[in-house]
Amino acid sequence: MGNGEAIERLKGALRRLPGVGPRTAGRMAFHLLERDREGGKLLAQALHAAVADVNHCERCNNFSEHPLCDICKSGKRDETLLCVVETPADLDTIEQAGAYTGYYFVLMGHLSPLDGIGPDQLGFERLLEVVAQGLVEEVILGTNLTVEGQATADYLSDLLQPQSIKVSRLARGVPAGGELEYMDANTLNQAFSDRRTLVESIEGKT
Amino acid sequence: MGNGEAIERLKGALRRLPGVGPRTAGRMAFHLLERDREGGKLLAQALHAAVADVNHCERCNNFSEHPLCDICKSGKRDETLLCVVETPADLDTIEQAGAYTGYYFVLMGHLSPLDGIGPDQLGFERLLEVVAQGLVEEVILGTNLTVEGQATADYLSDLLQPQSIKVSRLARGVPAGGELEYMDANTLNQAFSDRRTLVESIEGKT
Repeated sequence: MGNGEAIERLKGALRRLPGVGPRTAGRMAFHLLERDREGGKLLAQALHAAVADVNHCERCNNFSEHPLCDICKSGKRDETLLCVVETPADLDTIEQAGAYTGYYFVLMGHLSPLDGIGPDQLGFERLLEVVAQGLVEEVILGTNLTVEGQATADYLSDLLQPQSIKVSRLARGVPAGGELEYMDANTLNQAFSDRRTLVESIEGKT
Repeated sequence: MGNGEAIERLKGALRRLPGVGPRTAGRMAFHLLERDREGGKLLAQALHAAVADVNHCERCNNFSEHPLCDICKSGKRDETLLCVVETPADLDTIEQAGAYTGYYFVLMGHLSPLDGIGPDQLGFERLLEVVAQGLVEEVILGTNLTVEGQATADYLSDLLQPQSIKVSRLARGVPAGGELEYMDANTLNQAFSDRRTLVESIEGKT
């Protein structure tokens, strides 16, 4: 294309990012080279540092630059609760919501046999080790409510059954602000079957 | 977020790419760190090399690792034709189409006073220098058919008028495969006013 090899290599490397096709890669390369070379340098450095320094927390498996991540070494959380999530982004979202006070275990994915992701790739053994330490009283399965997330939760539920601890799943139902008119049948049926009692009927009342 | 600084820096750097918001940056960082560290390393190297090595061709202003780009130093093109385009991607698209045989001049943008992009930023002076060398007989204004591209073409047309060379603009009309039903009024009106004569009427015919 008369552009030279360095640009073609850059476009090729950008295409390894998720969701980036040839046109987007071209636009990104153009932007960095023409309008933001400083940004290009910063990105190169940040990538270099992250690839070199970021590993997994020994306890919760989340990304961490240290053997233990900030949450695991805080010592201020409820150690009877362990929430299993798929990704660091899920963990961040739960932390931002602010109500959960226990620890986490991050699977870094979900079961996906077609992609070669089975129990070994998701560190289920390490999860069992954490539970075996005896402090955890309840494992909350916080995987996504997608088909893959549900399958992963079902598998984990079976796996944890012999451990004689409570295993729970995030509630399914109508989201806050949701309008019934626009809910899918699955969600609505689940909301009916899991409905919460607000006032107990008083037997013998007349 | 308990993720550590290196990841936050990486996400911040990824957000400098065009079209990448906080969620996409998070997904990209997760992908590179969890599934493709090799890709992360390659991208860091490619960015580093491109920022260091890629400059502009002295003649056509396109990206190039050498003083002259491959097209300008080929010596095999029609030197009477010069096509002015906005970006290297436009040039690539024209090259792939295959019919144009002349040289190019790449503006690396279009006039956009609000963004501080005026004639000086687009290298109009260098374009005039190329034309002043006397070999060019026709300048084809190949900027986009957008409002900004049109304004840039109009400005260039005025600028080139004293040079006593032909200045032309890409034809506007219905694109190949286009259905009239779905054309906008502007395009359709232009296609009528620029209609091509296929058979000349023969005067005096009866």
